[in-house]
Amino acid sequence: MQATVAGFTPSPKSYRPVMCDAESVVHDNARPVCILGLGLIGGSLLRRLADPAAAEPRPVYGYNRSPGTVADATAAGYDATADLASVLTRAAADDALVVLAAPLPALPALVVAVAEHAPGCLLTDVVSVKEEVGRIVAEHHPRARYVGGHPMAGTAESGWAATDPELFTGAMWMVTTHDGTDPDDWLRVADLARAAGAYVVPAAADAHDRAVAAISHNPHLTAAVTATVGAGESELALRLAAGSFRDGTRVAGTAPQLQRAMLEGNANALLNTLSETIDRLTAARDALRDHGSVEVIVDDGHRARRRYQQIAAAEPAPIENVRVGEAGWAQELRRQAHQARVWVG
Amino acid sequence: MQATVAGFTPSPKSYRPVMCDAESVVHDNARPVCILGLGLIGGSLLRRLADPAAAEPRPVYGYNRSPGTVADATAAGYDATADLASVLTRAAADDALVVLAAPLPALPALVVAVAEHAPGCLLTDVVSVKEEVGRIVAEHHPRARYVGGHPMAGTAESGWAATDPELFTGAMWMVTTHDGTDPDDWLRVADLARAAGAYVVPAAADAHDRAVAAISHNPHLTAAVTATVGAGESELALRLAAGSFRDGTRVAGTAPQLQRAMLEGNANALLNTLSETIDRLTAARDALRDHGSVEVIVDDGHRARRRYQQIAAAEPAPIENVRVGEAGWAQELRRQAHQARVWVG
Repeated sequence: MQATVAGFTPSPKSYRPVMCDAESVVHDNARPVCILGLGLIGGSLLRRLADPAAAEPRPVYGYNRSPGTVADATAAGYDATADLASVLTRAAADDALVVLAAPLPALPALVVAVAEHAPGCLLTDVVSVKEEVGRIVAEHHPRARYVGGHPMAGTAESGWAATDPELFTGAMWMVTTHDGTDPDDWLRVADLARAAGAYVVPAAADAHDRAVAAISHNPHLTAAVTATVGAGESELALRLAAGSFRDGTRVAGTAPQLQRAMLEGNANALLNTLSETIDRLTAARDALRDHGSVEVIVDDGHRARRRYQQIAAAEPAPIENVRVGEAGWAQELRRQAHQARVWVG
Repeated sequence: MQATVAGFTPSPKSYRPVMCDAESVVHDNARPVCILGLGLIGGSLLRRLADPAAAEPRPVYGYNRSPGTVADATAAGYDATADLASVLTRAAADDALVVLAAPLPALPALVVAVAEHAPGCLLTDVVSVKEEVGRIVAEHHPRARYVGGHPMAGTAESGWAATDPELFTGAMWMVTTHDGTDPDDWLRVADLARAAGAYVVPAAADAHDRAVAAISHNPHLTAAVTATVGAGESELALRLAAGSFRDGTRVAGTAPQLQRAMLEGNANALLNTLSETIDRLTAARDALRDHGSVEVIVDDGHRARRRYQQIAAAEPAPIENVRVGEAGWAQELRRQAHQARVWVG
């Protein structure tokens, strides 16, 4: 699953900034970004990059298959179209960074179009699973220059109306980092994440998919079942529902087709976390039934939550002593990211 | 489980407001409130009632066994003591409404003290289970005038430092409502809830306990297991954790001893909701493994969450056409509350 390797093509040198040093190569702010899909994530990214008052604005334009979304974006002053072939032809001429920002089921058709109209463009994505996206890219565009991405940001809302240019501020943005990843391509995708206001978290695709199964996809399933059991009890129960139910079920309100695309696209990793969830709940039920105690599940959960709060509350520690491109750089970035560090260049 | 019936003693008429009509009996703002326990719930109630700027301030004083909490409350200008016997002697002289506001394991000793020092006082509580509290009251103070209560409000924090006089504003406050409940006692406890800024939800103890198992206690267990599975995956996973994990695990951060007291005190009802949770997750795992689909669990959860949002977003509909004390009043209040209505007098 390393489409980055199979399809590696050197980035055209002529597009590098003329006045450059080691730092300005990272801040690759001359070349445009072309976003395919203007829903919550893609639309928020368009708005952020297009904002001239943002810390790092970029030339940016987007495509959405729905004319209504395009009309909304255009009316708000953004550069958007519903013509996929033309936007990709433009991206090819610009050597734009092309961002796949549609749900998983819509990706094959988009990648086919990229292979036809903009085969030389660097390709990234903002989809929540990485092994499956890599498989789709490798199948439909085997010569792609592809470095995957995944911003850890979202709400239970979806679509252009829910977009927010601040959605990524301070968020973690995973950038796939394999031993064969081209350093310049990696830096350009990492630059996109930083221009959006996010921290860069390097990871291999499979490690990422296991991680998001545990902290995003599994929580969708526990939220769904918590909501169902609560609402099924009685209207009185929903009348009495307060903070624990409100917060614990929030993501169950996400559009079902978006949840399905995300969860079913990560089925293998999710089966593992779901099985562990069932096993732990079953042990808790047995302990409650046989000994009247919920000590183990409550103590384990409390310790886990406190560890999360420690990590979330602190300024992320930076990855240190590694230059992208030097021997072993990808492995070292992954190693430090596994200690909860982030790449800041 | 109707301690209200077994120990019913008529309220001394001399304490009724002198200038009264049907409305002013409800707004029973002359007699003091004595709160036993000044943690998050009891302390917030003390602060709310004591605020002269509140809509309905009440004479109020409190007890806490920790001298540190008493010192904090006293320093902030509140009337508090660590002397249980003296506060209850005062409550008896005042005909105060005595509020049990300590965790379940601490209740027997408090109820024994009430039976000794203030046996004639009307007694209520703010604990999250009702059958078990009723059993404790019936055992240790069989002649108690007791009407249970449960404000649906809280945070993952605890103790005096977390108190907030606005904690109950707009919250639901369940008041136990059985066929043998004395109407005047019920009105006085309902008045306390309203003075705190809450809506009154009448319910029988067993129906309440089933409801909170479904919408509060079960969510504590799903939050705990979601946190444990997420944190157990890797530090990388916790680094990538975002909104779904943050919100879905929030209540796992509640002090373990408070969670255990609450959940283990409602073991029977919780065993049912926990078993249903396990069954639904197991069906979801089988469907994901065998058919690659999470359609059922996601659709069910989405529908349940939307139903909750409808109820939570709307101004609560009032219970209509029933006067507390008329024939069948308790049954009629419960019937309408089961349609998610609230009592507003």
